[in-house]
Amino acid sequence: MTAQASFSNYIDTHAEAFIKRLGEAVAIQSISSDARRRQDVIVMGNWLNGQLHQLGVETKLVDLGTHEMQGQTLQLPPAIIGRLGSDPAKKTVLVYGHYDVQPALKSDGWDTDPFTLVVDEDSGRLIGRGSTDDKGPILGWLNVIEAHKNLGIAMPVNMRFCFEGMEESGSEGLDECIEEEVKKGKEGWFDGVDCVCISDNYWQNTRTPALTYGLRGIAYFSINVSGPGQDLHSGLFGRTVHEPMTDLIKLMSKLVNHNGNILIPGIDEMIPRPDDDELKLYQVMDYTTADIEQAAGGKVALSEDKTVVLMGRMREPSLSLHGIQGAFSDPGCKTVIPAKVGGKFSIRLVPPQTPEKITPLVNAYLESEFAKFNSKNKMQVEYLHGGKPWVADVKHWNFEAAKKAIEAVYKKTPDYTREGGSIPVTLTFAESLGVNVLLLPMGRADDGAHSTNEKLDRTNFIQGSKVLGTYLYEVAAAA
Amino acid sequence: MTAQASFSNYIDTHAEAFIKRLGEAVAIQSISSDARRRQDVIVMGNWLNGQLHQLGVETKLVDLGTHEMQGQTLQLPPAIIGRLGSDPAKKTVLVYGHYDVQPALKSDGWDTDPFTLVVDEDSGRLIGRGSTDDKGPILGWLNVIEAHKNLGIAMPVNMRFCFEGMEESGSEGLDECIEEEVKKGKEGWFDGVDCVCISDNYWQNTRTPALTYGLRGIAYFSINVSGPGQDLHSGLFGRTVHEPMTDLIKLMSKLVNHNGNILIPGIDEMIPRPDDDELKLYQVMDYTTADIEQAAGGKVALSEDKTVVLMGRMREPSLSLHGIQGAFSDPGCKTVIPAKVGGKFSIRLVPPQTPEKITPLVNAYLESEFAKFNSKNKMQVEYLHGGKPWVADVKHWNFEAAKKAIEAVYKKTPDYTREGGSIPVTLTFAESLGVNVLLLPMGRADDGAHSTNEKLDRTNFIQGSKVLGTYLYEVAAAA
Repeated sequence: MTAQASFSNYIDTHAEAFIKRLGEAVAIQSISSDARRRQDVIVMGNWLNGQLHQLGVETKLVDLGTHEMQGQTLQLPPAIIGRLGSDPAKKTVLVYGHYDVQPALKSDGWDTDPFTLVVDEDSGRLIGRGSTDDKGPILGWLNVIEAHKNLGIAMPVNMRFCFEGMEESGSEGLDECIEEEVKKGKEGWFDGVDCVCISDNYWQNTRTPALTYGLRGIAYFSINVSGPGQDLHSGLFGRTVHEPMTDLIKLMSKLVNHNGNILIPGIDEMIPRPDDDELKLYQVMDYTTADIEQAAGGKVALSEDKTVVLMGRMREPSLSLHGIQGAFSDPGCKTVIPAKVGGKFSIRLVPPQTPEKITPLVNAYLESEFAKFNSKNKMQVEYLHGGKPWVADVKHWNFEAAKKAIEAVYKKTPDYTREGGSIPVTLTFAESLGVNVLLLPMGRADDGAHSTNEKLDRTNFIQGSKVLGTYLYEVAAAA
Repeated sequence: MTAQASFSNYIDTHAEAFIKRLGEAVAIQSISSDARRRQDVIVMGNWLNGQLHQLGVETKLVDLGTHEMQGQTLQLPPAIIGRLGSDPAKKTVLVYGHYDVQPALKSDGWDTDPFTLVVDEDSGRLIGRGSTDDKGPILGWLNVIEAHKNLGIAMPVNMRFCFEGMEESGSEGLDECIEEEVKKGKEGWFDGVDCVCISDNYWQNTRTPALTYGLRGIAYFSINVSGPGQDLHSGLFGRTVHEPMTDLIKLMSKLVNHNGNILIPGIDEMIPRPDDDELKLYQVMDYTTADIEQAAGGKVALSEDKTVVLMGRMREPSLSLHGIQGAFSDPGCKTVIPAKVGGKFSIRLVPPQTPEKITPLVNAYLESEFAKFNSKNKMQVEYLHGGKPWVADVKHWNFEAAKKAIEAVYKKTPDYTREGGSIPVTLTFAESLGVNVLLLPMGRADDGAHSTNEKLDRTNFIQGSKVLGTYLYEVAAAA
């Protein structure tokens, strides 16, 4: 049996143990956007560091310092920098993943406890917060290393690791950490990296593996409106004062329309129209509007034309209204006039857009609209975090290696996609290392990342682990 | 010393004990709008019933049955019906109060634990949820009865009591209970009631006691918009689907404008313009826009003209946007597209408006506006609860007695006000008993009912208790 064959065999025969390990990771509530959960994020980092050590990976925990969040000064969770192998005859692959997760409450609509991994034998789903975003993919790499270690097979490449705990909250401090390792040259742990592989996104449907060569950026904002000194009784004060909610809701209503068009002048207009070659690219994809509606769980596609929907996600900016902080959000009928409210929204960016380019447009527009109200309330636009968009060269050997790995494991040619999501660090790697960066998704479009009942299909976890390992062999074999 | 004088003296000398008893009441989290707190509302009812017993009041707990709330079938807290004295030579006064409170979390912005009564010696404030709305006023009556009992003085009138635990959630079941006691005639506990006194509202400033002869009604709604089967990742789905928040925010933005004008056709138009006599009534009131801004804690009055502000509260409808259920409301940056959102708003009503008259206007308007969106989402307007407005005869001896009581205790002539708040039961008493109903407020305009740091001034609690007792003597003396 070839090394590759016995590696694959090991993955199959140890599937249950791998799923058990995923359960341990999911059980740690590493929510980076909630100050009350910060300690759990750090616990998760230590757990992951311990796993890497057991597998023979040399690591260091990089202190990223502190930051202000929710009125507190908080320790940032450490970046885990690791290395395995330094054979000059081998290529060196840098792997990235994040061990923090999005918030999740059972009351959000989960069928099961979000932080208890549920193995649904009927559907073959592994259900739990972080299963697909991004704990499953990180553990996929651990599965590969464990197989080689226990089989006594040498890894086909040298590996470097960069695992962070703040991806869901703007990757604070990570860019500096990466640039530091690069700047150190020979002393830096990222010295000699030939390519980067990130597994933190999804197929565009539930059938066909994908390779992702583009990502949207993001700019996340809060519109803060305040006036009264405290919340007021709507009976006592209704129609006597300027109500912050009235101003906020009006401003939020002026950001995006029902067709997804962004109403902030100059943002949609930044994007060049696609030429015929680009249009064809979307037309040939294995994709239908039924796919998007299956993934969304409702017949709500913005268009019946798949190219319109694909372009909406891959090559156009989008604006989503996430919610309001400070207003009444519980069940029941509270007759309150909230005194201070923050309307949260974010804009997904595509080239040539950047947070720096669009933020002034957002501020100017909202300030001019608010001025029209002649309201005595105060309004302030707060930029919370963001990242630039990214596009890569799909003809590079890094993408070729991943294509061959997918064909070997799944017997299918992958779709080449641009993703709607944002992974700002992708750009940092591309720019600071100057090497090709590949996005190799493990999960499917209907995994429900950032949503209720997040899942990773068992087959995607196990076959996906094989793809990651096979990809390393293909990288080693590449000219 | 006259009976009245020794009663007043007892109130002064027992102030500390009265405040301690208020602390016991505030400590019970009787939030009627939260299913998780229902048991606490029932505990509060039992506590109040126990207090009444100790003071010699005969009571019965009326089972109001069950209702559906937040997907559960819940037992309604009991109505506490009580009687004290049946001397045919005396008038009979029916007193109403509610022992439930609005929701309160320290994280809403309270300086202290909402359910621990804090006595601030510097400001003379009694701070805690329910201190002014409506546990303080209920205990004011207990103070009066205790004084007479312990002094061995006969009460000047017969008393009847009606205390409920669902006022903040639409007084479910109470109307039937009241009408039942009235219908029973001689067997009914409300037989022979000569007048009603409700202490569940506020002075219109911080200086001048008030008598209230009008109340606005209310109609509380939720606009429910849904589409996707679960919450979605805004990166994966932004600009591919119809987002419920986009539709909801747009609908909410079409309800009211920055000047407080209601944009739903036909609602503001229902109200006749005031004649010169009515206008004069507002012009002479002891009131400035500085009062509203002091009470609101910010310079946000809708107008510099006090008559405009007074009319806005007393004789015009108002529409307030309370918040959104199902959207992201926590601190942080969750990049979610909420799948199902409910926008809460309520309209305060004045004669001739009723929930029955305005609900069809609300439904028709929102449905026609939503139809314009051509959205694939589903929209449904949910009517949650409501009550009719009310106006009383201020020349009745019931109001005269209260006026004399206030002049005796506070040495001031009260303002005659119409209140912006809603106490639906007021109308039930007026209509079912056919007697005069008086609103005799204990608290001030800046008490922050339904808000953060709710308080009742110590002097209002103690002097207010004297007013309640003195009022009973004036009723007894009335022709």
